[in-house]
Amino acid sequence: MALDDSWFTEQHDGAGSAFSLKTTAKLSDVQSDYQRIEMFDTTDWGKLMVIDGCTMVSTRDNFLYHEMMSHPVLFSHAAPKRVAIIGGGDCGTLREVLKHPEVERAVQIDIDEQVTRAAEKYFPELCESNHDPRAELLWIDGIDWINKAPAGSLDVIIVDSTDPIGPGEVLFTPAFYNACHNALADGGLVVQQSESPLLHLPILEKMYRSLMAARFSDARTLFFPQPLYPSGWWSATIGCKNGTLDGFREADADRRRFDTHYYNSAIHRAAFAEPEFFRKARADWLASN
Amino acid sequence: MALDDSWFTEQHDGAGSAFSLKTTAKLSDVQSDYQRIEMFDTTDWGKLMVIDGCTMVSTRDNFLYHEMMSHPVLFSHAAPKRVAIIGGGDCGTLREVLKHPEVERAVQIDIDEQVTRAAEKYFPELCESNHDPRAELLWIDGIDWINKAPAGSLDVIIVDSTDPIGPGEVLFTPAFYNACHNALADGGLVVQQSESPLLHLPILEKMYRSLMAARFSDARTLFFPQPLYPSGWWSATIGCKNGTLDGFREADADRRRFDTHYYNSAIHRAAFAEPEFFRKARADWLASN
Repeated sequence: MALDDSWFTEQHDGAGSAFSLKTTAKLSDVQSDYQRIEMFDTTDWGKLMVIDGCTMVSTRDNFLYHEMMSHPVLFSHAAPKRVAIIGGGDCGTLREVLKHPEVERAVQIDIDEQVTRAAEKYFPELCESNHDPRAELLWIDGIDWINKAPAGSLDVIIVDSTDPIGPGEVLFTPAFYNACHNALADGGLVVQQSESPLLHLPILEKMYRSLMAARFSDARTLFFPQPLYPSGWWSATIGCKNGTLDGFREADADRRRFDTHYYNSAIHRAAFAEPEFFRKARADWLASN
Repeated sequence: MALDDSWFTEQHDGAGSAFSLKTTAKLSDVQSDYQRIEMFDTTDWGKLMVIDGCTMVSTRDNFLYHEMMSHPVLFSHAAPKRVAIIGGGDCGTLREVLKHPEVERAVQIDIDEQVTRAAEKYFPELCESNHDPRAELLWIDGIDWINKAPAGSLDVIIVDSTDPIGPGEVLFTPAFYNACHNALADGGLVVQQSESPLLHLPILEKMYRSLMAARFSDARTLFFPQPLYPSGWWSATIGCKNGTLDGFREADADRRRFDTHYYNSAIHRAAFAEPEFFRKARADWLASN
């Protein structure tokens, strides 16, 4: 049955699938210097942000992505004091990061200020920590910023980027991971969203090979649901500089004094469980490196 | 951007979302005595079975559902010899069940023989164990069959049903769970698909209350991705008769001599991890019982 004009539909490139949300109003349509940013109201998913035709954030389900891009990596680091977020202009990841009292400074570097302006207006809850004294928001090129970051100056880098096509493509290369490796202190962690385990296994392979080429000593993938993104099943991949990803601060996760909607220590452990097909694929990538 | 006629789209009732697959051909369209069964070929998902307008099975992603409806419950039972599958006419669950050497008899009871006939033609891989001497396929009313099953005659009941609206509604009632409880031996397990954790929490609550009303001594939910179903995030809920769901035959799961694509013992443990919002909701349901 065909969908009428009230539906926003994203076709998933090369996947032969599409996801649609029923909208009630178009709230704004901005062509920034970098991309087209559309905002909608929907019947059941709250506000919806679309960038260059791809669904990015909805009020209803963004907690899954934002919590899983921040809490697992932060509780996997022994003492995450200095955090950088590359991208993340909607500020939802920044909010989760700043829930951690150990974090002394969190810098968000997104090239497009208009994304943050739209988030402030339509997702104010995601922006509630933007004025935290530990936060710094920059609207400049994140790759350039990482390239210039002093060696060993960061504990955690969160790459909250768009897909690895177009402007986001450089974020999946060995050169970018080399810059991350240099900017991280020993034991430092970089996490990057790594697409759908079902649809994008070749992208995950490329990420692993890039992380290994950049001399990260360990790399693991976590898995979580994300209805708004292709297949509804998503992943993030963590690389560790001069250390391993064998454990996490489980007691701290259990004692955390902030609210979460998805994350807890059981979910932390569970997210790292590898589906059988992925376990075999990852073993092959590591063996053939 | 609108989808042309080559896309099959399912609108998700009451959820304001829709999922579409790009088709290349319509292979068949059968109105059985019970429902309309459509088969399509798709660009990227293999064959697609649609029943009464709802996407049911695709070649590409059915492994997630069929493995998670069978292996966790079977490895959670100490000695699963006698298994019944209510529904499951595509035979994919039956195939997974029969991979377990402990299973001595597996009866599949689906009211609609035409579903199995379509699966035999378009999903022959799912039907490869239909002639296993341990298998029995019946096309009669599954609820009637369970009501008449001798007390204590089953170890595991798998309810591989349609959604709890229309014909499937009775499968989510205390009366049905009472019949399951009676048919199970001590330590017996019933598992039923329990919809999307994000979209259908009230249905999960109803299932828990029905299981408790039917005197099941423990109940747990497992979570897994399922791109074809609303939100791409799905669940199944297990009830235990006179026992607990605290452990599973982990060593047997590790030593299993059959192939899986998603399931392994790490995924087994991970699937039972409760998202924070669900952990709180379930605790409330149990406390207010």
